[in-house]
Amino acid sequence: MELGIIGLGKMGGNMRDRLRAGGLTVVGYDQNPEIADATSMADMVDKLSADGPRVVWLMVPVQAISAVLEELTPLLREGDIVIDGGNTRWSEDKPRAEALAEHGVKFIDCGVSGGVWGKEAGYALMVGGEVADVEYCQPIFQALKPEGDFGYVHAGAHGAGHFAKMVHNGIEYAVMQAYAEGWELLEAADEVTQNVPEIFESWQSGTVIRSWLLELVVRALKADDDLSEIRGYANDSGEGRWTVEAGIDLAVPLPAISAALFARFVSRQDESPAMKMIAAMRNQFGGHAVLPEDQA
Amino acid sequence: MELGIIGLGKMGGNMRDRLRAGGLTVVGYDQNPEIADATSMADMVDKLSADGPRVVWLMVPVQAISAVLEELTPLLREGDIVIDGGNTRWSEDKPRAEALAEHGVKFIDCGVSGGVWGKEAGYALMVGGEVADVEYCQPIFQALKPEGDFGYVHAGAHGAGHFAKMVHNGIEYAVMQAYAEGWELLEAADEVTQNVPEIFESWQSGTVIRSWLLELVVRALKADDDLSEIRGYANDSGEGRWTVEAGIDLAVPLPAISAALFARFVSRQDESPAMKMIAAMRNQFGGHAVLPEDQA
Repeated sequence: MELGIIGLGKMGGNMRDRLRAGGLTVVGYDQNPEIADATSMADMVDKLSADGPRVVWLMVPVQAISAVLEELTPLLREGDIVIDGGNTRWSEDKPRAEALAEHGVKFIDCGVSGGVWGKEAGYALMVGGEVADVEYCQPIFQALKPEGDFGYVHAGAHGAGHFAKMVHNGIEYAVMQAYAEGWELLEAADEVTQNVPEIFESWQSGTVIRSWLLELVVRALKADDDLSEIRGYANDSGEGRWTVEAGIDLAVPLPAISAALFARFVSRQDESPAMKMIAAMRNQFGGHAVLPEDQA
Repeated sequence: MELGIIGLGKMGGNMRDRLRAGGLTVVGYDQNPEIADATSMADMVDKLSADGPRVVWLMVPVQAISAVLEELTPLLREGDIVIDGGNTRWSEDKPRAEALAEHGVKFIDCGVSGGVWGKEAGYALMVGGEVADVEYCQPIFQALKPEGDFGYVHAGAHGAGHFAKMVHNGIEYAVMQAYAEGWELLEAADEVTQNVPEIFESWQSGTVIRSWLLELVVRALKADDDLSEIRGYANDSGEGRWTVEAGIDLAVPLPAISAALFARFVSRQDESPAMKMIAAMRNQFGGHAVLPEDQA
């Protein structure tokens, strides 16, 4: 089987390697000609076999997808399949599938987990789309997924793949926050527990909280045993927000996931406007001292 | 090596089995004579070798520890070691160690994780106490812990073992809440994702959130695919509260762990008094309808 990949960054480039290692033929296109196999999208499509439906996997930043599809769609013919493997918001998938369907082009959304580890360990795939299209692309999914029984699911119709991936990431936010809070508490209790990295290391076996993220915590503490080299600043890439927004749409309470998301927002403030207001009110009703703006 | 165990319930009984499988001599005492090896605590102590320090492992409910120690301590002699393997609050360990030290008896606190799986897989142990005592008891810890490099840590002085176990359980609360919220959201989005158990099953490989708790989620959904047989009611056994209280003592923010704890409290209310008040206020300022008490 063969496919085109548009976007050969950290993820797309590694996925091309894994697909080739799995015996597939891959024609990669990227704006950076040094890593691309084709000089343009048109050249990429030309290099794919003329027989049967062609498959193009998009691995581009969310902001770029519409522009890429505007250029790509006229190059495709009826029956070709576009797979969006990026972190697209699930609600964009159905309209995109409908727009492509007007050109006779099929669409599959695929949430991908695994990060830089996926090249060797395999990528967990959550797929949304029509059964026939998903079946046609099985060789691609089987090459990308980890070995064994797990790591792949056809989660439902258009949007279901990205929805499942979004919820995966929402869960991830709260799980990460759980370990992070526990670590901060153990470190703060330095009169009780002095060897915090050893405690985390020991938890990797026999405990209820053993997990792959725990292994990453242990790796991080081996590199920097009190994280003194890292600033307490965490970005978010959208899925956490979309998870909370989906909770709002469906009236599902998400106290831990939303707390984890909001904790990241707090981490990005040099100073909290809300806490300015708290200090001002304490001063108003109780005469409690406020710190002037220039006093740390 | 030999030791006595007081308390042969689900945990203590399995631990006796694992210790014996590891080649240790165990004399178990329990209020239930059918499962005990000794007829009384005195009989248990008598059956332990007269040579060298004797070790007694307590595996009794938190409420029973003081009464057990009142009976046990006079039976012990200088240099003997008591290990508390229960879910005791860490702050009780240092006073208990000091009280036992007045009788020349040594004390070790040991947080134990592993539940019903520990008998086969091994118990993760978090130990607090003096180095010499902890060294003396190594054969016990080595027999109980899982095979391999992990699953055991000497976390610090008296109390550190139970403190580390408490934080482990606090983390566990928020990790469990994370998966639970994600599951509820996926189930609520039934127009998007129909095969929720399959999604969770697929997540066991290649994802960032793969973990032992995720495996338990999958097991639970295999037994009851929408949990229709289980009531949404969750108890707590103290460690979550103590974790949040430790966060309060040390001024460490624990938004996800406290959210997970409070979610369990909500689950145990037939009706929310706070939501009665919210409804009453909405009625007062906006004339919004309230539901009468007897209308579900």
